[in-house]
Amino acid sequence: MGFSTDNLKGFLLALLSSGFIGASFIIKKKGLRRAAAASGVRAGVGGYSYLLEPLWWVGMITMIVGEVANFVAYAFAPAVLVTPLGALSIIVSAVLAHFILNERLQGLGVLGCVMCIAGSVVIVIHAPQERPITSVQEIWSLATQPAFLLYVASVIVLVFVLAFHFAPRRGHSNVLIFTGICSLMGSLSVMSVKALGTSLKLTFEGMNQLIYPQTWFFMLVVLTCVITQMNYLNKALDTFNTAIVSPIYYVMFTTLTIVASVIMFKDWDGQGAGSIISEICGFIVVLSGTILLHVTKDSDRNLSRSMYAPLSPTLTTRLANENGELLKHVEDDMASSEETGGLRRHELY
Amino acid sequence: MGFSTDNLKGFLLALLSSGFIGASFIIKKKGLRRAAAASGVRAGVGGYSYLLEPLWWVGMITMIVGEVANFVAYAFAPAVLVTPLGALSIIVSAVLAHFILNERLQGLGVLGCVMCIAGSVVIVIHAPQERPITSVQEIWSLATQPAFLLYVASVIVLVFVLAFHFAPRRGHSNVLIFTGICSLMGSLSVMSVKALGTSLKLTFEGMNQLIYPQTWFFMLVVLTCVITQMNYLNKALDTFNTAIVSPIYYVMFTTLTIVASVIMFKDWDGQGAGSIISEICGFIVVLSGTILLHVTKDSDRNLSRSMYAPLSPTLTTRLANENGELLKHVEDDMASSEETGGLRRHELY
Repeated sequence: MGFSTDNLKGFLLALLSSGFIGASFIIKKKGLRRAAAASGVRAGVGGYSYLLEPLWWVGMITMIVGEVANFVAYAFAPAVLVTPLGALSIIVSAVLAHFILNERLQGLGVLGCVMCIAGSVVIVIHAPQERPITSVQEIWSLATQPAFLLYVASVIVLVFVLAFHFAPRRGHSNVLIFTGICSLMGSLSVMSVKALGTSLKLTFEGMNQLIYPQTWFFMLVVLTCVITQMNYLNKALDTFNTAIVSPIYYVMFTTLTIVASVIMFKDWDGQGAGSIISEICGFIVVLSGTILLHVTKDSDRNLSRSMYAPLSPTLTTRLANENGELLKHVEDDMASSEETGGLRRHELY
Repeated sequence: MGFSTDNLKGFLLALLSSGFIGASFIIKKKGLRRAAAASGVRAGVGGYSYLLEPLWWVGMITMIVGEVANFVAYAFAPAVLVTPLGALSIIVSAVLAHFILNERLQGLGVLGCVMCIAGSVVIVIHAPQERPITSVQEIWSLATQPAFLLYVASVIVLVFVLAFHFAPRRGHSNVLIFTGICSLMGSLSVMSVKALGTSLKLTFEGMNQLIYPQTWFFMLVVLTCVITQMNYLNKALDTFNTAIVSPIYYVMFTTLTIVASVIMFKDWDGQGAGSIISEICGFIVVLSGTILLHVTKDSDRNLSRSMYAPLSPTLTTRLANENGELLKHVEDDMASSEETGGLRRHELY
């Protein structure tokens, strides 16, 4: 163990973030349900009645708080610790949905939750210490070491090949292309978010880093990566079922982020083989639990959507798409609910 | 890490044991199939034609070798390490069944295998060192310490209450009663097998322990516990579906064995909190993987049977029951195979 104060802060922030993000989906869904019920008629696909529903706004604010906590967590603890803990938000969603929305967790779903927790505990126990960083130049030298430059170059080449060669041909038939692009960009997003977060943390601590051009460069990289990532994530989600995209995206994104972090921040230097292997096993267990939770859910409903929120360090994008999908769930729920559904379904089909 | 030679020996023996036991079920099943095919007619429930089939004998010998390896493993490494590794025999069975018997592993089955392996790795990394024992008297003093005597007394009282109060009333409706008795007895079996194995190991190393009455006492305890355990395991398997009994038995048996070992051999003394928590998480992961493998199997066929073999340290009992069930599987397989099945099924029903 031997957790440093910074690691502990990062860990608690990551937990908090998962709690908020997990809860936000339930609150928003309750808001959408209430809006749909209040408007009397079926909320059309283009309807915006939910904007008048306070509960929906509470959910939105909860999510933003969660994403901010996630962003700050990266400034305190290694990505190897923070990223996999994102899976805990699925558990929060699943448990809250069970109690609040009466969406029963199946036996295997419970097993998936247990596994995510057990794997997370193993990861937390063996997480490396965050190395003390005192200036943005230090991060800059980490980012410009040959091994990491090679990683960045490979990512950029791969993204270009995928986006301009494969995406036009197979993008709509092979789920790995769009999700691959956003996972690759996602690993760069997290690294640049971590660089930016650390600079801002130092600035708040009194060591102003905004005077260095590197800080502004990292900010630019964050924006570019995050926008690209979100763009392709929305394409993936528009083209394929969320239930297929989410686990694949989670696995690829988390794996690539850990690889990037290990190369750039040398997280595993000075760790024993036992710790590293335990971490990898913990990570595999969390991934398995995540997959299990997704597979056992019936179709693409409810929780799948909560999957990709905690994984990206952004606040605002993809909200339109997300609302659309949540709305669809609510409508499906209402259409199939006993009191009103039978009639409506018949009216429509 | 820092594996002692003895721990390494115990670990390799446990792996070997799982390999042999896992393989034995596939070999025996192949033997039974061949015997059923050779005899031309449907092998009756009372049929013994498989005794003429060499392959069946190869399977039987493989199983005995596996059980002996398991027994010896307990003499070298802590039960906390050896017992959970028994789950690996299910993976061996599942993988061999996939390739040799063409019984396809489903997606979730593969996930279950991955989890059993990841959990086992975590357990192995954090396993405590076997403490050096130089005489049977030393084991005797461990076995007679107040805490362990209290454990033994509680087990005996519980077994009596279950066997004489609950078994006659609810034994045939509640699966926990028979499986509870054999899990409780099983934890004592493993402890006494470990005591006996260590004594025999010392004897082979030149320090004759057979001159001490304690060695013979442990032998008596092994026989009593194992016979009781097997008796109630057969009752449980006769009364309930193997697919229900096996995972419950595995979970209870392994948990109680670890509790007993921690009390008697003080496995966790001198281990850090991180190691102990990691071990527990690894154990939970292996259990989850085991449950997943069982749940995803269709009904009670094929692999469920391989479950309880590696967990008990005996060689010979329960063979009759086991063969009966394997035979039933083979018959089911043949009855439902396309070439011959349709007809037979119609003849029968």
